[in-house]
Amino acid sequence: MRISYLGPVGTHTESAAMEYDSTSQLMPYATVQDAVNAVEKDESDLAICAIENALEGAVIETLIILQNEVLSVNITAEIVIPIKHALVGISEQSLENITTVHSHPQALAQCRESLISLVPNAKPVAALSTAAAIESAAQNPNTLAIGNIRAATPKSLHIYNPDISDNKNNQTRFIALAKNTAPQTGDDKTSLVFTMAYDIPGSLVDVLLPFAQRKINLSKIESRPTRQQLGTYYFFVDIHGHRDDPTIADAIREAQPKTQWLNILGSYPRWNHQ
Amino acid sequence: MRISYLGPVGTHTESAAMEYDSTSQLMPYATVQDAVNAVEKDESDLAICAIENALEGAVIETLIILQNEVLSVNITAEIVIPIKHALVGISEQSLENITTVHSHPQALAQCRESLISLVPNAKPVAALSTAAAIESAAQNPNTLAIGNIRAATPKSLHIYNPDISDNKNNQTRFIALAKNTAPQTGDDKTSLVFTMAYDIPGSLVDVLLPFAQRKINLSKIESRPTRQQLGTYYFFVDIHGHRDDPTIADAIREAQPKTQWLNILGSYPRWNHQ
Repeated sequence: MRISYLGPVGTHTESAAMEYDSTSQLMPYATVQDAVNAVEKDESDLAICAIENALEGAVIETLIILQNEVLSVNITAEIVIPIKHALVGISEQSLENITTVHSHPQALAQCRESLISLVPNAKPVAALSTAAAIESAAQNPNTLAIGNIRAATPKSLHIYNPDISDNKNNQTRFIALAKNTAPQTGDDKTSLVFTMAYDIPGSLVDVLLPFAQRKINLSKIESRPTRQQLGTYYFFVDIHGHRDDPTIADAIREAQPKTQWLNILGSYPRWNHQ
Repeated sequence: MRISYLGPVGTHTESAAMEYDSTSQLMPYATVQDAVNAVEKDESDLAICAIENALEGAVIETLIILQNEVLSVNITAEIVIPIKHALVGISEQSLENITTVHSHPQALAQCRESLISLVPNAKPVAALSTAAAIESAAQNPNTLAIGNIRAATPKSLHIYNPDISDNKNNQTRFIALAKNTAPQTGDDKTSLVFTMAYDIPGSLVDVLLPFAQRKINLSKIESRPTRQQLGTYYFFVDIHGHRDDPTIADAIREAQPKTQWLNILGSYPRWNHQ
């Protein structure tokens, strides 16, 4: 199987792709959109995309792809992996000599307290990705990087600490996007996206009611700006059950006319590899 | 009036503070939390905090403050301002000579297409803030910055373009946090935050139903991870009406026992300075 994903090699998305299928052919792309386009053009069988992080929330790039009204792929699986931020550098030395620590601003923010205690004299420096930060650290002995240990290993960098995250509950949920659909397993989720006419009283509740009345579990609701007007949103809802289940199908059929536009993003097995 | 805000001088938050009260004493702080703490310690009368951007969605730092169960301030106003990303540098010169453009990754992403057409030879470089980027541009003739025009003006930088955003619909909504409460005006909003027991069928709908049944308009729903467990959220809901209005008060009273925890963040006049 060919799996496309947001590169470079050594990202957390690559870890998720290997978790999904360790024997697959991994194909890194420059953007999430490029990885999905590869599936649409049959260059790849499946794209793995980060969709939600336990600390930061939704991954916007992926939601923007799922908002597309003519999406030709659908969600066939979810994968959850723990996220660890390793502190790495060229060679082992006293952390007091370190002058700068490079990383993506999000990773720097997630490790702020650890950095103050571990590398008190270092200045945080922003990078465009954790992979780019590791590149910088590999070129300067007084610079460390925060990133995925998998990106540091091929460069033979020294691992000062395998995880300096301030909060150890960090996980990211990924989705697999493919042209086929996933069969019912008995423990499935269905993802929906919809928009509503602006500012109509109670309209969001009207859309959710058909699910509540059937005791269908709502595991997630996320709103994203439409980028047209402040206060208008795309709503992303995950429900428990498969679209082929008659109860789920009925509820969706009842909810759809209460939206402006509704798309079923896919039904797929719930992640439960603890 | 003393207004605390996320500095440095020249940020969009400062623009919002001046829009709120142009005669106030403006006090920049290092973080949103510090600006709010200043109000709690009576060093400031009011804090202005960005809460939502039309392109990027919620401002996480502010939502984290509003999740606090013992918050001693409440929302007394909202302010909406247009966001423009200016391209600035030390002195006017041919854009073909520019080698790097510095900015916060979010601003770089929001201007990506403009950068490719305007400054084709420049490499984007990440900075920790747009203000820090302008600082770098003020020190190097071959470097430009993307930032708020108000931060470039005191440094006498050349303004190549007052707004190179790819999408011109960019706006940010700010809130004012203070110890007092805002009186009813007849066109008000009330903001709520709540959590729910994990994974109970239909529970979110049960909380929203008391509002829908009374035809109370729901202008926003936003979910944020609790940072404890993937799949558990804080829900932020804005409704139209003031908490002193008996219909609103009744609906909240009916919704509260259906949540695990609910806090009224404040009632305040709707922004309508078009």
